[in-house]
Amino acid sequence: MQITASDPAFPEDAESFCRQTGNVLLASDDKAGICTLRIRKGNGAGQAAAPCGTAGGTNKNIIVFSGDLDKAIAAFIIANASAAMGRKVTMFFTFWGLNVLRKPNKVRVAKDFISKMFGKMMPRGSEKLGLSRMNMFGMGPKLIRSVMKNKNIDSLEQMIALARQNGVELDACSMSMDVMGIKKEELLDGVKMVGAATMLANAEVSDMSLFI
Amino acid sequence: MQITASDPAFPEDAESFCRQTGNVLLASDDKAGICTLRIRKGNGAGQAAAPCGTAGGTNKNIIVFSGDLDKAIAAFIIANASAAMGRKVTMFFTFWGLNVLRKPNKVRVAKDFISKMFGKMMPRGSEKLGLSRMNMFGMGPKLIRSVMKNKNIDSLEQMIALARQNGVELDACSMSMDVMGIKKEELLDGVKMVGAATMLANAEVSDMSLFI
Amino acid sequence: MQITASDPAFPEDAESFCRQTGNVLLASDDKAGICTLRIRKGNGAGQAAAPCGTAGGTNKNIIVFSGDLDKAIAAFIIANASAAMGRKVTMFFTFWGLNVLRKPNKVRVAKDFISKMFGKMMPRGSEKLGLSRMNMFGMGPKLIRSVMKNKNIDSLEQMIALARQNGVELDACSMSMDVMGIKKEELLDGVKMVGAATMLANAEVSDMSLFI
Repeated sequence: MQITASDPAFPEDAESFCRQTGNVLLASDDKAGICTLRIRKGNGAGQAAAPCGTAGGTNKNIIVFSGDLDKAIAAFIIANASAAMGRKVTMFFTFWGLNVLRKPNKVRVAKDFISKMFGKMMPRGSEKLGLSRMNMFGMGPKLIRSVMKNKNIDSLEQMIALARQNGVELDACSMSMDVMGIKKEELLDGVKMVGAATMLANAEVSDMSLFI
Repeated sequence: MQITASDPAFPEDAESFCRQTGNVLLASDDKAGICTLRIRKGNGAGQAAAPCGTAGGTNKNIIVFSGDLDKAIAAFIIANASAAMGRKVTMFFTFWGLNVLRKPNKVRVAKDFISKMFGKMMPRGSEKLGLSRMNMFGMGPKLIRSVMKNKNIDSLEQMIALARQNGVELDACSMSMDVMGIKKEELLDGVKMVGAATMLANAEVSDMSLFI
Repeated sequence: MQITASDPAFPEDAESFCRQTGNVLLASDDKAGICTLRIRKGNGAGQAAAPCGTAGGTNKNIIVFSGDLDKAIAAFIIANASAAMGRKVTMFFTFWGLNVLRKPNKVRVAKDFISKMFGKMMPRGSEKLGLSRMNMFGMGPKLIRSVMKNKNIDSLEQMIALARQNGVELDACSMSMDVMGIKKEELLDGVKMVGAATMLANAEVSDMSLFI
């Protein structure tokens, strides 16, 4: 398989990718900013190499506590890169992170006064998220989104869709939902409601757990 | 053992819990929002199953850098859920996280001017912590605490007490204490003063380290 | 080898350090606030003990997302303490964390308008970073730096230099550089440009990954 790319970090990444997934990087060439790589699938011994890493599992476990656009983007870039390496990824959305999973349109559900107020004050879905810094009353997120688009980088919404296509599991913390008065119907379809015990069980078969 | 619960995430969590702790979930039933589970202690083979997970240890290591109420709650929920699974948990409080461990009342200790100033400006103990967002000059924390109380969820102070009862180790970063001018007498009794090397040693026998 | 120290957390740390690195703590004594320790290099069996920890590796992987002074200090303290234990450490600077690696002086590179604007609005290098809280329009960082100096604690700049001397690898996220319009020439010399796949490959041979 031959690949060409204009990203200067690509050869390093491809080498890492091959080392961890049991493929063989045959040759790497960098001419005038264009890298060419040749990769043989499998490790030549007729079977995938056992991945390096911790013995208990190579899954990835990502706790998304933050509801900031920049942190959500970081979380999904890591999740999608892990899935591309063939790893099982579980994301556990808790506290403000639940806002990332909210459907953009209002869903009619019965709520008490405080839950309604929370629902109004917090961003409804990924498109409404602010930045952790340089938010500038909403100009920052628009600017970052426009720059990412110009650089042909997926939007957060495309990243979420890709994650779901690639089998990344999206879990919502049931206790946070209870506290913030968010109902299952208000979250993206297919999101599972789980508790901390499930997140911890996922952590125990993962070699990386992040709190974002 | 038979358990009933009204939390929709409960069966998923119970299944995860049993899988990781060597107990057997015999049956799970969900009727009209009430889940009934039957669990056999031990794995039926007369001994607890070896826990899945990384080879080096199933301890949990939590670095609490933040002094925000919401992040402290998240940290203690994870710590207590880990302890409930029979895992050893160490929490390392550093920088602003030290404020979580401060005694609520003023303790008379000799301090230089800057340390006194720091001591006054930073929240004295868990009850004074603010939120990482929607703090609204202190209304946010009051609101969250009141909602949690109405939902029968433990307060942060109850979570801390529970953690200590269950053997969660609370460590304070000695260097941060030195920089912020916080003395041992000002922290909750029984908190150990340690450095980064001890935190790292704990990390090396843990399958999950979080920076919160 | 005999060591004396005035830090009350030192015996605990030395014990942890010896346990994880295969050295033997022979005796520890604490008199009037001065601790004396005697350590035998190696474990007496003529070879270093296999380190406890996860099977897949004892490397440390630190993702620096934040561009706050306090979080950068925490990241480098952990990195340097890990390196002192003989562990390989990789730091992956992404998003605002890239600012930590910027050269303090302006570097002449061709940039589009938005990249120039980003470059001006974000702190240029470690000396310009603000605090995550109590920043007080730049007074906070000055205060913390002055306190650290008085307590004989290394400055962030000294910590970065020490990390490089001790072989800590500093990686910059190529995608973040692209989005923020930061060029390789603007980062400290020797920093590598890599992508998320390389960070993940490092995570898979580490027993601790942190998102800071």
